[in-house]
Amino acid sequence: MLIVMKASASETDVQRVVDTVIELGLTPLSVPGASRTAICITGNKGSVNEAYFLKIDGVKEVIRVTKPYKLVSREVRLDDTVITVGDVKIGGDHDVVVMAGPCSVESEDVTLNVAKEIKKIGVNVFRAGAFKPRTSPYDFQGLGLEGLKTLKRVKEETGMCTVTEVIDTESAEVVAEHVDILQVGTRNMQNYSLLKKLGKINKPVLLKRGMSASLDEWLNAAEYLLMGGNADVILCERGLRTHSQYSRNTLDLNVVPTVRKLSHLPIIVDPSHGVGRRDLVRPMARAAMACGAQGLIVETHIKPESAFSDQAQTIHIETLDGIMRDLKVLESLEGINK
Amino acid sequence: MLIVMKASASETDVQRVVDTVIELGLTPLSVPGASRTAICITGNKGSVNEAYFLKIDGVKEVIRVTKPYKLVSREVRLDDTVITVGDVKIGGDHDVVVMAGPCSVESEDVTLNVAKEIKKIGVNVFRAGAFKPRTSPYDFQGLGLEGLKTLKRVKEETGMCTVTEVIDTESAEVVAEHVDILQVGTRNMQNYSLLKKLGKINKPVLLKRGMSASLDEWLNAAEYLLMGGNADVILCERGLRTHSQYSRNTLDLNVVPTVRKLSHLPIIVDPSHGVGRRDLVRPMARAAMACGAQGLIVETHIKPESAFSDQAQTIHIETLDGIMRDLKVLESLEGINK
Amino acid sequence: MLIVMKASASETDVQRVVDTVIELGLTPLSVPGASRTAICITGNKGSVNEAYFLKIDGVKEVIRVTKPYKLVSREVRLDDTVITVGDVKIGGDHDVVVMAGPCSVESEDVTLNVAKEIKKIGVNVFRAGAFKPRTSPYDFQGLGLEGLKTLKRVKEETGMCTVTEVIDTESAEVVAEHVDILQVGTRNMQNYSLLKKLGKINKPVLLKRGMSASLDEWLNAAEYLLMGGNADVILCERGLRTHSQYSRNTLDLNVVPTVRKLSHLPIIVDPSHGVGRRDLVRPMARAAMACGAQGLIVETHIKPESAFSDQAQTIHIETLDGIMRDLKVLESLEGINK
Amino acid sequence: MLIVMKASASETDVQRVVDTVIELGLTPLSVPGASRTAICITGNKGSVNEAYFLKIDGVKEVIRVTKPYKLVSREVRLDDTVITVGDVKIGGDHDVVVMAGPCSVESEDVTLNVAKEIKKIGVNVFRAGAFKPRTSPYDFQGLGLEGLKTLKRVKEETGMCTVTEVIDTESAEVVAEHVDILQVGTRNMQNYSLLKKLGKINKPVLLKRGMSASLDEWLNAAEYLLMGGNADVILCERGLRTHSQYSRNTLDLNVVPTVRKLSHLPIIVDPSHGVGRRDLVRPMARAAMACGAQGLIVETHIKPESAFSDQAQTIHIETLDGIMRDLKVLESLEGINK
Repeated sequence: MLIVMKASASETDVQRVVDTVIELGLTPLSVPGASRTAICITGNKGSVNEAYFLKIDGVKEVIRVTKPYKLVSREVRLDDTVITVGDVKIGGDHDVVVMAGPCSVESEDVTLNVAKEIKKIGVNVFRAGAFKPRTSPYDFQGLGLEGLKTLKRVKEETGMCTVTEVIDTESAEVVAEHVDILQVGTRNMQNYSLLKKLGKINKPVLLKRGMSASLDEWLNAAEYLLMGGNADVILCERGLRTHSQYSRNTLDLNVVPTVRKLSHLPIIVDPSHGVGRRDLVRPMARAAMACGAQGLIVETHIKPESAFSDQAQTIHIETLDGIMRDLKVLESLEGINK
Repeated sequence: MLIVMKASASETDVQRVVDTVIELGLTPLSVPGASRTAICITGNKGSVNEAYFLKIDGVKEVIRVTKPYKLVSREVRLDDTVITVGDVKIGGDHDVVVMAGPCSVESEDVTLNVAKEIKKIGVNVFRAGAFKPRTSPYDFQGLGLEGLKTLKRVKEETGMCTVTEVIDTESAEVVAEHVDILQVGTRNMQNYSLLKKLGKINKPVLLKRGMSASLDEWLNAAEYLLMGGNADVILCERGLRTHSQYSRNTLDLNVVPTVRKLSHLPIIVDPSHGVGRRDLVRPMARAAMACGAQGLIVETHIKPESAFSDQAQTIHIETLDGIMRDLKVLESLEGINK
Repeated sequence: MLIVMKASASETDVQRVVDTVIELGLTPLSVPGASRTAICITGNKGSVNEAYFLKIDGVKEVIRVTKPYKLVSREVRLDDTVITVGDVKIGGDHDVVVMAGPCSVESEDVTLNVAKEIKKIGVNVFRAGAFKPRTSPYDFQGLGLEGLKTLKRVKEETGMCTVTEVIDTESAEVVAEHVDILQVGTRNMQNYSLLKKLGKINKPVLLKRGMSASLDEWLNAAEYLLMGGNADVILCERGLRTHSQYSRNTLDLNVVPTVRKLSHLPIIVDPSHGVGRRDLVRPMARAAMACGAQGLIVETHIKPESAFSDQAQTIHIETLDGIMRDLKVLESLEGINK
Repeated sequence: MLIVMKASASETDVQRVVDTVIELGLTPLSVPGASRTAICITGNKGSVNEAYFLKIDGVKEVIRVTKPYKLVSREVRLDDTVITVGDVKIGGDHDVVVMAGPCSVESEDVTLNVAKEIKKIGVNVFRAGAFKPRTSPYDFQGLGLEGLKTLKRVKEETGMCTVTEVIDTESAEVVAEHVDILQVGTRNMQNYSLLKKLGKINKPVLLKRGMSASLDEWLNAAEYLLMGGNADVILCERGLRTHSQYSRNTLDLNVVPTVRKLSHLPIIVDPSHGVGRRDLVRPMARAAMACGAQGLIVETHIKPESAFSDQAQTIHIETLDGIMRDLKVLESLEGINK
């Protein structure tokens, strides 16, 4: 249940609602908005009588939330969430954010070189994995702490923001000390212990969709983060596992306009994993932007053929530059919701 | 196997190749191109010795075809196939073709009204079903012959080209007499008797992808048409059946740039069935065009709520008009293969 | 809606119900049962007032049917349908029926030899394809009429019943003249023109599930047959197309006990296509029988390696003999519904 | 690469092989078998020259492993792994092991009551969840440590072995102190940090298949455990997520005989999650045993309707008793590999 306060409600009014929720043995969660505050009630097994709240001054309305998730829903928060990372704004009507870089952090030299080239063409978020969840225990598992230090160097030298994957609760804090955005990978979307941990960390989270996750499961995973106290969540579609075999995954772009209706959180697209083939990345990056994605995350390298991992889907800097030009054209499209 | 002739090859040279193929007990199929002719050999179980052909004058090269399909492949024909229907050109670098209209043909009055409104906003191919393959025998099965006559009226009154579904061999000819393009629906993509019949009819075929068809199965279905003698095939992606349930199907846009690489046939997208929800049609139509679709087919009505079928995914004329405006913006994107 | 008559109802009572249905502008379908008759009403758009029928003598009750299908449902007919083909009974508590033979009809000699060996181990239905729906137009398409004649020879020489696939309306009658059971393949499950045709033919139909068909779509396809007048329908599960790639398909055995609850029609399983690998056929045949399948259809050959098609999934006679022994053991399991 | 020793090889011979591997800069892993030892080489990027080993006394052969996994493969170990937990033997030709109990640990009273009833019918492994990974953060998350204590009580009072899910590295040790078998759930199959942790713990692990995991991904997840030092791994099929919607998941029984060929690890089946509906559990439990499953894990309760979670798929004790009777019948089936 959600209690929406009037724009004119005082802090005392809000406090009275919060106190009433607690008296009923339930848990209140304050959801501040641009023009009004809402209080979300969690912890109720059955339904709660709305009469308790309607009589309090400053309460505008009481909404019964019908979705299994609440805090991520537009029912609870009408305005788009906008996340600020350094100079970058993600979400709302802000410019499409482009995150690019190699699959894995490599040597400091190579990594810095890639970062500088990427920055030259106007990208301002750098991505690279230090901890790699790999299907086989015999595959390269990432450089770990050394990789994190390289990412910190990249930030210092280039001024770019950085994003990297966090694969367990133990390493979550050290990762958060070295980069700006914490990525939860597709295999960990339902690793609830990790989500609970990241809910307590003060850094934005990029939450990839599980490779067979339903929309509800994905939004519920985000709900774990918001409920834990971290409201800065970026959703990221990266392709479904289907019977279709010519591409590594089936990029589900239908989900982009759907998420923009159901949730106030920003949604970006990872065409690299969504297709798994270098030659499909640019066309699908365009398609993602055309249907309303608020950002892209793209595996990019100076020499894709010699990358430590994901060679087949990593694009050249030149292709990324083409995507940056496409972006300018696509900005002229009318707003998705018009 | 494919024998590619030099640009300078004479008709006699070509005939000599054809005769040699026949002498070997195999079947030759001539594939004329803009600048050169190729002869495709079918009917061989094992491999054929290329020496037989390399010694003939005018032969440029002999290519062993590695895909299970041949005639639809770019290995066999380098230039895009362009299909001409009345004033409309489909494929190659021609303007994105937009096909629109109600799911089913309705009364002549309503159908004509919808057609006129659609034509006003610049659409020049009209779609509507006269024979409807329906999941339940108790559902509306279409107006049949009466519907075909209405489609002919639409053509006469508005000058638009028309496309409708053909569901069996018995009705194939009568459908061909009444409309310009014959649609094979997703449930009939592997109805090989129907494909063989349509291979013999002199009208373009719009071949929808089966809802769980692999890319190879789809291109092989097209191969049935080309092998039968009908080279005017338009491929149409309409969404896969996956575990994802929030949209009716999962539109597989990855397939668009892939088909454009593998085949010379034009590919269009049906966002209406690809999503199954009115509010997702325009964003996904944009996405389809952005990744290289050469056309769209969109269920559209004056009053979608009162349509005979597929109400939930049929858009208003105004939304289609928005798509026509999107198209103008997207034309400025650099060519997909650049 | 379904009107169930008392066991004591006279023919005049039944006729009165039928007349009333017709007077209401609707279509009655008589569904005779072992102990009572029911009349199924089709053609109604909205709901029908049950008072019209409750007042007629001999009417026991009026049931509103809640599923999209009616005639195939246990709501309409409580007793299992039992289909008689020669000496063979299929369905109900009758012995598990085993259908076996090569994928394709081959030469008369080979085909007869296989049939005789199969008969020796106690199988009494012979399967083999004369018309083959093939993914590629370059693959062997079956022997056609010649194959049908061979199947007739098999019946004459061995006394076995025969089943073969029918792939289009044109050939339906000639197929029906040569064999005992008409198979509709997975690619034609939603070929409604074919289903309508087979509804009018007086031979049992074996209806395979489409490779991505939902349960409702499958039962609705069977409904087309029953509504057309053919009540002798055998359902056949043959594996779904999923993301799982180590077997050709994913045999969906969950569907077996589900169909036995929802429908009165017999259900059999095709483990050959369900797995696509010879070594998995016997274990999965056992599993199918253990969860309640009323029959099996298994690709079997004397020399599977030299079969015309589906070599990889065709088993040796010895393996089939093992399955026949398994069957004896599994007969001791308590009835599924106990 | 795998170096197989002769049955007659001495410990010195084995040591010499191990030393040689280390000298080459690689990592040796000893794999003891019933009759012979093998040494598995990991850590090699390229191929290793087999001549180094063939000249050592006691070496029988050198096998190049072709699968992405090694230690779990039959190529490396021919005999079935048999895991001993208290009096229970899991794997090989030992009796089918049945694990049963409620989805969640409930109050000590209820849990003990269920355990005693289950034990009465001959079950000797008790299952119940103390830590529950739930899709929604608002759902019951399990009793945690209190639940673990109850499981310890169950073991003390009934003598049954116990299995429960472990959801993160932090709680792995405390779980291992309270129960006999550690379950990794479907959502954590690719939580590699958890797998690495459990590789170091001296308790058997029950590894459920991810709901969209390929066979290779699953066996590779098991490889993480074996490589970490824990050889006691039980694989558990629990249903795939597919487009099929009438059951919660599609139980993939094809995988059972396949795993028995590819791997020496025991495989059991979870029909409860595999179907998600109480009425399908017994038929599918039968099917699983018929195709070679070496165990079952079944959600069971005295009052399924009042269970804390998974009510719809939890069966009554009486149904479990029926499954125990089915098991007796199915024991007469000939061995799967005969």
